[in-house]
Amino acid sequence: MALKPLHDRVLVRRTESEEKTAGGLIIPDSAKEKPSEGVVVACGAGARKDSGELIEMAVKSGDRIMFGKWSGTEITVDGEELLMMKESDIMGIIE
Amino acid sequence: MALKPLHDRVLVRRTESEEKTAGGLIIPDSAKEKPSEGVVVACGAGARKDSGELIEMAVKSGDRIMFGKWSGTEITVDGEELLMMKESDIMGIIE
Amino acid sequence: MALKPLHDRVLVRRTESEEKTAGGLIIPDSAKEKPSEGVVVACGAGARKDSGELIEMAVKSGDRIMFGKWSGTEITVDGEELLMMKESDIMGIIE
Amino acid sequence: MALKPLHDRVLVRRTESEEKTAGGLIIPDSAKEKPSEGVVVACGAGARKDSGELIEMAVKSGDRIMFGKWSGTEITVDGEELLMMKESDIMGIIE
Amino acid sequence: MALKPLHDRVLVRRTESEEKTAGGLIIPDSAKEKPSEGVVVACGAGARKDSGELIEMAVKSGDRIMFGKWSGTEITVDGEELLMMKESDIMGIIE
Amino acid sequence: MALKPLHDRVLVRRTESEEKTAGGLIIPDSAKEKPSEGVVVACGAGARKDSGELIEMAVKSGDRIMFGKWSGTEITVDGEELLMMKESDIMGIIE
Amino acid sequence: MALKPLHDRVLVRRTESEEKTAGGLIIPDSAKEKPSEGVVVACGAGARKDSGELIEMAVKSGDRIMFGKWSGTEITVDGEELLMMKESDIMGIIE
Repeated sequence: MALKPLHDRVLVRRTESEEKTAGGLIIPDSAKEKPSEGVVVACGAGARKDSGELIEMAVKSGDRIMFGKWSGTEITVDGEELLMMKESDIMGIIE
Repeated sequence: MALKPLHDRVLVRRTESEEKTAGGLIIPDSAKEKPSEGVVVACGAGARKDSGELIEMAVKSGDRIMFGKWSGTEITVDGEELLMMKESDIMGIIE
Repeated sequence: MALKPLHDRVLVRRTESEEKTAGGLIIPDSAKEKPSEGVVVACGAGARKDSGELIEMAVKSGDRIMFGKWSGTEITVDGEELLMMKESDIMGIIE
Repeated sequence: MALKPLHDRVLVRRTESEEKTAGGLIIPDSAKEKPSEGVVVACGAGARKDSGELIEMAVKSGDRIMFGKWSGTEITVDGEELLMMKESDIMGIIE
Repeated sequence: MALKPLHDRVLVRRTESEEKTAGGLIIPDSAKEKPSEGVVVACGAGARKDSGELIEMAVKSGDRIMFGKWSGTEITVDGEELLMMKESDIMGIIE
Repeated sequence: MALKPLHDRVLVRRTESEEKTAGGLIIPDSAKEKPSEGVVVACGAGARKDSGELIEMAVKSGDRIMFGKWSGTEITVDGEELLMMKESDIMGIIE
Repeated sequence: MALKPLHDRVLVRRTESEEKTAGGLIIPDSAKEKPSEGVVVACGAGARKDSGELIEMAVKSGDRIMFGKWSGTEITVDGEELLMMKESDIMGIIE
């Protein structure tokens, strides 16, 4: 199942956070802070200007991005928990 | 009775959620989470730009879509509970 | 007394809900849910674009429509309780 | 004293509500519901478009109108309690 | 000291309310309702359109105006308590 | 250290309020009402129109201005407490 | 890891606040007020006008800036706590 985001939405897979502390302790799942870093899985075609032209997206599939802690809506695609957010929720691209 | 949505509204039929757990247990109706997946039943003609031109809809009847948990208004058409939402509430098309 | 709605307002008469249950029980008035289905009694001429042109209404007198449960303002015209709403409150036309 | 409303404001005199019930009982002032029907006393010249042109008013002095229960601001002109509202608060013209 | 309002602001001097009741009783200051009638002391040059052109003010110094009870900000100029409000807070001109 | 405001922001130094009452009593700092009068220390270049052109500022350094009691953000520049506000918070220029 | 801000966002490193009071006392970390002064680490390419053109940023990497106390979102880049804010949150440039 592939999910094609509409308009200026972006489907994002969170990057797994570290499972061990620097000292080697394993962090249980419930204590891990959800990372605000992820990878773009799929992009919409872009929002439309008043004139009807598409506004090109500033990110593309595969981009590593950072986003605000509370950005996006959780969505389950093929049993995997992904995030659907608007391009404007993306703060930057990790290069 | 057919209901023709106005403007950029979309009439959606929720996809039935699974009635059994993976282990074979039947889930009672009240315990099932309402799925945020559905099928487009009918579309409006689209919103209008300031210039008066129609903005073409990005979805069409029959499209399988995903939407936010709290999107749309429940509406009963011919005894069936459907959802009326705006196109902007649709997060993506399942391909 | 005829009431001509201004701009993009629509005057609507609610469709009476069923007075009996499927089993034949008469439902007292206070227990009936107000239907969100109605008939357009009168329409305004339409809102105006910035350019001054009228935006044509998408409904007309006599159309059977559905609207949100809480749409419109109750207004008493000739002793009859009608609803005045904006065209944008109308979710669809029953065909 | 004449009060000339500015822009798209309309000065309205509420129509007196009936002082007797159908059965002939006189209703004390405090128990009467304020009517949401009135007559236009004076109109502004209209709001202005971005281009600077006036948007013509849809009502004129003498028009009998209906408005929402809570529309407008009470204003005392020559000891008489009138209502100043925006044209957009007017729901329709009684013909 | 002269205060020149910026943009579409208007400096207003409230009209003194009557100090006696109809029956001749003197009303103490604290019991008098602040009048919502006043005289324009000074006007800004007007707001600017997107094109940069000034939107001419609809009132001028000396105009007797009415405004909403809670309009404007109190401002003390040369020890006198005046009101600074936007032109849009002015409901009408008394002619 | 000089602070150059961005866009349509204005850096303002409050005018000191009187330290004595008319009768000669010295008013302690905590009892003095913060004055809403000040002097423009520095101005931004102005906001930009949609077309990209600058909208010229209506105030300039040295102007004595009045502003609303709660306008602006306090900012410490070289140990001195100044106010950073938007030009639209300025109510008028004292001439 | 380099983080490239999107659109009109700016990545900012707070300037360290003084660790000693004027009298030589060392201020513990928890008692220090977070400074609202910083240095621009990286800038986005700028927001886009309706016409699609970029609006050039008013700040650039290396600029010393001041911003409101509550501006921006904290973001951890390579273990360092930075701030991501919009250009409009920047109050001025220190020259």
